[in-house]
Amino acid sequence: MSKRQIKLGAFIPTTSQHIAGWRHPESRPQDHLSIDYAIELAKTAEKGLFDAYFLADGLSVNWSHGSSKNTTGIGYSDKVAGFEPVTLFAAISAVTQHIGFIATASTTYEDPYILARKYASLDHISKGRSAWNVVTTIASSTARNFGNQPHPDPKLRYERADEFIEVVQKLWDSWEDDAFTYDKTSGQFYDLSKNHEPLHHGKFFNVQGSLNVPRPPQGYPVIVQAGQSEDGRELAAKYAEVIFTAQQNLEDAQAFYKDVKTRLVKYGRHADDLKIMPGVSVFVAKTEEEAKEKYALLNSLIHPDVGLGLLSGLSGEIDLSTYDLDAPFPQLQDNQINFSSRQQMMIDIARKHHFTIRQLYEFIASARGHWTLIGTPEQVVDQLQVWFENEAADGFNVLPPSTPAGLNDFVELIVPELQRRGLFRTAYEGKTLRENLGLNRPENQYVIAKQRIAEAS
Amino acid sequence: MSKRQIKLGAFIPTTSQHIAGWRHPESRPQDHLSIDYAIELAKTAEKGLFDAYFLADGLSVNWSHGSSKNTTGIGYSDKVAGFEPVTLFAAISAVTQHIGFIATASTTYEDPYILARKYASLDHISKGRSAWNVVTTIASSTARNFGNQPHPDPKLRYERADEFIEVVQKLWDSWEDDAFTYDKTSGQFYDLSKNHEPLHHGKFFNVQGSLNVPRPPQGYPVIVQAGQSEDGRELAAKYAEVIFTAQQNLEDAQAFYKDVKTRLVKYGRHADDLKIMPGVSVFVAKTEEEAKEKYALLNSLIHPDVGLGLLSGLSGEIDLSTYDLDAPFPQLQDNQINFSSRQQMMIDIARKHHFTIRQLYEFIASARGHWTLIGTPEQVVDQLQVWFENEAADGFNVLPPSTPAGLNDFVELIVPELQRRGLFRTAYEGKTLRENLGLNRPENQYVIAKQRIAEAS
Repeated sequence: MSKRQIKLGAFIPTTSQHIAGWRHPESRPQDHLSIDYAIELAKTAEKGLFDAYFLADGLSVNWSHGSSKNTTGIGYSDKVAGFEPVTLFAAISAVTQHIGFIATASTTYEDPYILARKYASLDHISKGRSAWNVVTTIASSTARNFGNQPHPDPKLRYERADEFIEVVQKLWDSWEDDAFTYDKTSGQFYDLSKNHEPLHHGKFFNVQGSLNVPRPPQGYPVIVQAGQSEDGRELAAKYAEVIFTAQQNLEDAQAFYKDVKTRLVKYGRHADDLKIMPGVSVFVAKTEEEAKEKYALLNSLIHPDVGLGLLSGLSGEIDLSTYDLDAPFPQLQDNQINFSSRQQMMIDIARKHHFTIRQLYEFIASARGHWTLIGTPEQVVDQLQVWFENEAADGFNVLPPSTPAGLNDFVELIVPELQRRGLFRTAYEGKTLRENLGLNRPENQYVIAKQRIAEAS
Repeated sequence: MSKRQIKLGAFIPTTSQHIAGWRHPESRPQDHLSIDYAIELAKTAEKGLFDAYFLADGLSVNWSHGSSKNTTGIGYSDKVAGFEPVTLFAAISAVTQHIGFIATASTTYEDPYILARKYASLDHISKGRSAWNVVTTIASSTARNFGNQPHPDPKLRYERADEFIEVVQKLWDSWEDDAFTYDKTSGQFYDLSKNHEPLHHGKFFNVQGSLNVPRPPQGYPVIVQAGQSEDGRELAAKYAEVIFTAQQNLEDAQAFYKDVKTRLVKYGRHADDLKIMPGVSVFVAKTEEEAKEKYALLNSLIHPDVGLGLLSGLSGEIDLSTYDLDAPFPQLQDNQINFSSRQQMMIDIARKHHFTIRQLYEFIASARGHWTLIGTPEQVVDQLQVWFENEAADGFNVLPPSTPAGLNDFVELIVPELQRRGLFRTAYEGKTLRENLGLNRPENQYVIAKQRIAEAS
């Protein structure tokens, strides 16, 4: 068996990760909607041998992440408006060969048949390089765009997510891998005995017919998940093959890693079936001083309205603008607590460091609460190595603070240092995302059922 | 003003148009799900200067179009399972420069916010080459995949389609063209005064918030429509910029052309705002005899099960397998009549030609009731020219009977003859699909409203 190595995702919206990243001198915000620029970023990540290009997604304008709607456009980024990720990745897949694509989509506001179709199609188009980051949608304002009924509570969202994934996997299994025979001589296009209708009737969904896309090359696109709540961890343990998580320190990361890997057992899964990839924001330069300057430069570009908007978004749309920016972060009222993992993370950070509001948003700005590393390639890789070798991470989802500068820095400075230590690949191992991540290709559930029936008789 | 010229669409699923096209010696059914093959077809069409690549779509396995589910896989084509068109076109757009993309999607089973997003994203990705073919979904079996409630009747489907398009256009107008300022110095990413929320509350939809994709390069992707019923024509007159229609002869095509163009007036539209493009299947060769051989070859490859399945699909899932193939086409019972334009077309053809069931499916097989031309380049272009110059067509949606052979024939033999007569472009006129089709770029409805208010005050 080959040596265990670090897996890497590149979380690279065209307008940068750090909330002021688009104001970096080398950033190209005017290329926000440029497919050529998005392709350029993907090719840089592919040159850096990243496993996958990751993009978040939502189904509403996320005003709280930039400025509030009441201010005048002091804002940022893809959170307001940008590409739809599945279409973007389909385009990028046509001009890349190896990098995978992790596109986010919501189980609360999308439909399972339509979602199963687009990911299956992306998997065929990319020749097995697609992944679905399953989210349940936190932003309650999304409900305004889908009938304007109340946004479901987390418990209900996770219950629906569980059934949603079940339905989508049934749809992906509608056709066995070799169902299409294309026999010109007999005229047989497909073997009907290798078609299976889901005939699903559950609490949330009634989906009877087969998917009209053949089984994806990967069997299923890779299932990715990011929730950190109790329900989120349980859903991940049942289905996820990659977890994108926000962890601030080694102890917390280890506790999370152990907790989730342990939960796998009850679902008949093995620890290797799930790769845990904490997010990490890296400011790297040849000297530590230069790296610190890079960090300070971006923080100096944060407009206070944007900083407050960021905290408001994380906190569940609490308005902090009436508080003094340079006073200690306030105690939240009972009716402001929403029990989301993102809000809890924010509160924990503020308490631990005794931050003011301004200090808190500067701390979170680089990667919205993800681990932030600042230093030389050796210093940064030392830290990554500790997490990787001590059951805190199987890899990292990299959030370059700015694009293209932060991404270029990672590829030019961190990747060679990882390779020098034997911690990272020097060439892609496989053709599909699953092969590169070291994940098994799932068997078709209907084929398994047929085999069981045959064995029993 | 430049001379009026023919517009051309290429309706080219990877597995051919003629129901036995995939069995043609040059066809490559095994490349059914090959993105490389789909790209090759698109590049051939682009070499032929086609305005757009057109793909139909549905949200269920269309068993009736191949064999019924009770037979053993004698079937055909993309109707059973294939790519999802928006993702496919996104991929193809990355490796082409000029050809447009007409992707079909349903107003009955999709959601307006999600649909508006994917087409807006495709328009950005393709730099203004996208179009939406609006369908209301005829196949009642689709309902099985979306809650298994009864499939809505045509009246209700068209009512919903009307409101659906209205919502989607509001969403595309959420941001004015110059709403995004990307001002690094001030930190202003967008100008909030140029954002407009739809705040739509109608019979079918309640959509409050803005789209989280900036306004498409074309303003709106081109709106395409294909329904021929009374409701379909009215919807087309209100919104459509291209109509894909099935017409068998000059008189009917002229009547349809006149009827729809006349309806435009009441919506404040001009005849040039809508391009009428009948479908046409072309069997062409250097000699008439050779062209007829091409036609006979494909008909000889039709499996009777597939022929019956084709008629069943067109007729609204009527089972004709109990009838004698070589007896006259039967009179339908009252409870079998579904008033769809496709069923009516089938009945009209059978009556007019006194066809048997077998003769009917052979006649329809090449392009499911679309106009079929067989002959030399001169003979075929003579006919196209008559329609184009006598108010029967502004262009044609070409359904090559087989791919790649039928498409290659069209590009190599028909296009040069059209160009020789000055009926077709020798280079693309514009950069966007709208520019090539000669369609105006729609103004933003909220900008128009602001201007009206300013003028009134």
